Amino acid sequence: MTHKTIFDKRNISMMMDLYELTMANGYFTQEQQGHRVAFDVFYRRNPDQGGFAIFAGLEQILQYLEGMRFEAEDIEYLRGLHLFNEDFLAYLSRFRFTGDVYAFPEGTVMYPNEPIITVVADLVQAQIVETELLAQVNHQSLVATKANRIVRAAAGRAVSDFGARRAHNNDAAVLGARACYIGGVTGTATVSAGQEFDIPVGGTMAHSWVMFYQDELTAFRKFAEVYPDNCILLVDTYDVLRQGVPHAIQVFDEMKARGVASKNYGIRLDSGDLAYLSREARRMLDEAGYADAKIVVSNSLDEYTITSILDQGGRIDSFGVGERMITAKSDPVFGAVYKLCAVSGEDGVWEPRIKVSETVEKITNPGLKRVYRVYNTEGQAFADLIAGQDGVTDEDVKKGIVVIDPERPWKKRLFRDCTLRELQTKVMEGGRRTGPAPSVREIAAYVRRQLDNEIWDEEQRFENPHKHYIDMTSDYYNMKMNMLEEKTHG
Amino acid sequence: MTHKTIFDKRNISMMMDLYELTMANGYFTQEQQGHRVAFDVFYRRNPDQGGFAIFAGLEQILQYLEGMRFEAEDIEYLRGLHLFNEDFLAYLSRFRFTGDVYAFPEGTVMYPNEPIITVVADLVQAQIVETELLAQVNHQSLVATKANRIVRAAAGRAVSDFGARRAHNNDAAVLGARACYIGGVTGTATVSAGQEFDIPVGGTMAHSWVMFYQDELTAFRKFAEVYPDNCILLVDTYDVLRQGVPHAIQVFDEMKARGVASKNYGIRLDSGDLAYLSREARRMLDEAGYADAKIVVSNSLDEYTITSILDQGGRIDSFGVGERMITAKSDPVFGAVYKLCAVSGEDGVWEPRIKVSETVEKITNPGLKRVYRVYNTEGQAFADLIAGQDGVTDEDVKKGIVVIDPERPWKKRLFRDCTLRELQTKVMEGGRRTGPAPSVREIAAYVRRQLDNEIWDEEQRFENPHKHYIDMTSDYYNMKMNMLEEKTHG
Repeated sequence: MTHKTIFDKRNISMMMDLYELTMANGYFTQEQQGHRVAFDVFYRRNPDQGGFAIFAGLEQILQYLEGMRFEAEDIEYLRGLHLFNEDFLAYLSRFRFTGDVYAFPEGTVMYPNEPIITVVADLVQAQIVETELLAQVNHQSLVATKANRIVRAAAGRAVSDFGARRAHNNDAAVLGARACYIGGVTGTATVSAGQEFDIPVGGTMAHSWVMFYQDELTAFRKFAEVYPDNCILLVDTYDVLRQGVPHAIQVFDEMKARGVASKNYGIRLDSGDLAYLSREARRMLDEAGYADAKIVVSNSLDEYTITSILDQGGRIDSFGVGERMITAKSDPVFGAVYKLCAVSGEDGVWEPRIKVSETVEKITNPGLKRVYRVYNTEGQAFADLIAGQDGVTDEDVKKGIVVIDPERPWKKRLFRDCTLRELQTKVMEGGRRTGPAPSVREIAAYVRRQLDNEIWDEEQRFENPHKHYIDMTSDYYNMKMNMLEEKTHG
Repeated sequence: MTHKTIFDKRNISMMMDLYELTMANGYFTQEQQGHRVAFDVFYRRNPDQGGFAIFAGLEQILQYLEGMRFEAEDIEYLRGLHLFNEDFLAYLSRFRFTGDVYAFPEGTVMYPNEPIITVVADLVQAQIVETELLAQVNHQSLVATKANRIVRAAAGRAVSDFGARRAHNNDAAVLGARACYIGGVTGTATVSAGQEFDIPVGGTMAHSWVMFYQDELTAFRKFAEVYPDNCILLVDTYDVLRQGVPHAIQVFDEMKARGVASKNYGIRLDSGDLAYLSREARRMLDEAGYADAKIVVSNSLDEYTITSILDQGGRIDSFGVGERMITAKSDPVFGAVYKLCAVSGEDGVWEPRIKVSETVEKITNPGLKRVYRVYNTEGQAFADLIAGQDGVTDEDVKKGIVVIDPERPWKKRLFRDCTLRELQTKVMEGGRRTGPAPSVREIAAYVRRQLDNEIWDEEQRFENPHKHYIDMTSDYYNMKMNMLEEKTHG
């Protein structure tokens, strides 16, 4: 009866690149079963040259891993491709994900080249989950990060997601609305997102309402009759200042005359010069005695247009943001990747793996790792620290940790008097979650807490933000350098 | 048993903006039932300053309309919002779409401001389908148009969709793969898209395969053993020219020595300077006697990088295109809108409706319309023509049609010796399809036919393409101008 998750009514297990399955078939037929391997999810560059990104999508990843299975029709389809061994197909038909997953809490402020998620599982299992893991992290982190930028630009004013119609299809609209909420918007217009994730839904009226009645005044009167407590009138169908706002004021006058005290009323502007029109509309509403009437604006907004409108004195209470937030238009690709970092030998010892590349940014961080956020005594996060599998002990912290900035390896620093928070925790063990899922509202509150209390303002500005330090323990850095040398001169 | 459609396992009827339902509730409670209205879907601007766009997404729209229903849990959720009349909720619980739909055939080359789809239905029905119709048209047309640009840049070389991991979630990956195929790609890596739409799937190998084995030569040998007939080796994990290509050649030598004649073998480059590396790799493969070994390249490709690589003499057989195609990165918003154009009066006569706006491009084309593609005697489409509800008769064509270009209304033209093809046909009547759905392969073939035979090369170039004429009959133009004057001076 209850509508649990966006995926429970369909099976998305076949949403993967074919090579996941061909490689898996290769491993299955060529290797002993039960090789444990570790893959890291990480990204290489913050969108929009920002100072950080917001991690989102983990909950859908865990749902996917729990629900993964291949149905008879799937096996039939794969058999028809004439690429797969029958034993492998039989294995797939019984497939369940039984690996371990370590991850940052959803909503964590994150930085390039950190292992956000680490999957530790049998070789075949770890391989074939790649595409869906990346699609979730990439899409939701992209939109959460963009929404957070827009919310910051709105400087305390409400921002709503109006993007469904321009989203890249249904999942992008619904999970995009989820990501927007994680990023800090106050609500969404997308009904199924409200239903699915228990986030506030809202909306105003469309031009069709005014066009249907032809006469704008009639249209406004009808709307005020049905929705006296949600009476945001769209004033730009014909002429904002000569018709729309005067008609709205006339309807507010009529409501007042009838003794209706609306909880939420005002106007929406959806075209024209929003800075100018909102100032004029504000003046007209104020002069008519409606200082508490809200002005909602929409039309191709993002952090840049919002900043510009506010700089020019726009008088706006609420922004309806559509296409540029839901598609992250200015930078619509979040490039998280999934890379093998370690293979367990027969003795159970983890051997690191590294990918070298002609493209320097594509070189990976080898081995099992632990990531810490490092706080100063005021509770501000001044660096992140990557260490090897054994991590950093309280003892290490007490006596000071020697760290290397891999971008300036000649500079060593000593971390003293700091507090460390380990960012990855085990969220899945043997294919089962280790704890209950946080709600979307809790995740959004966690994002706000970090930005209000931990993350420097210098990292939050849009222009040339401070670059967060991602340091390495000297042991870890030296291990990586040795591997690189070996691989390129080997 | 058979896996019919991407939507049949879930209900997407709640994927809409809240205001569709609040307006519908308003219409339901304020107006007589049974008002027939007409809404047009059209867009305003070609992506990437191109000469045209490709219409895609119709099939999913028809599936959605056929399947629309609100379940008990949906009604319960809506009731909890305290916005809706109980009679309206009862109406929703019985809801079926019973309207008529007129549309361009899927795959049609289309231009701004043409009614691609017209929905004629009861007011409430026509209103609440808006969001999903737009989401489908916007997403799939965006990606089909982008893919077609990339395919044109590849100039006859194969292009495959590798984009799932960077798509904006699952639907964007799967329906995006469908749109890419409509746009002209030869196949996709996304397994569920191949399964769902019967389009070719393919793929090579990932870096993880090489990294797992550590030793590249071993990795290549293992792969060649499992996939002798699909042996595209990824050569950039460590060093392309010093290790990757020589190792690949060694494995091809070994295959030859074993008497294996591979149907499809070669290398993939996924980083570095693809023009330079592909030339060098081609030389090395040719010198080793592998002139038929394929070179596949990938890594942030689009029409611009492909053109540049080919201009620099890149020797490439096949492009794997990911993030920039599946997200249409350079211009990721397709701005189709859904606007009321006519309302049926009590006498059954259609009254036109128009939206005026401070933003000139947001002014709509009022009334029921008919759209024609106009061909010269060589079969080339030299203009499109918008006429009123009564359309253009054979008689009109015979004696010549006086048309007006709305962007240069002082210039009248006479169309003579031309052939007209009406672009909209009735695809749904009373909520039922009027005919079977074309396959995705048929739609892709239709796109190719238009571009090969009908659409001028001048419209297909990337730089400053010829702007297709969208003319109006003089009667239609005059009707629109009269309405505009009335609305703004009324």
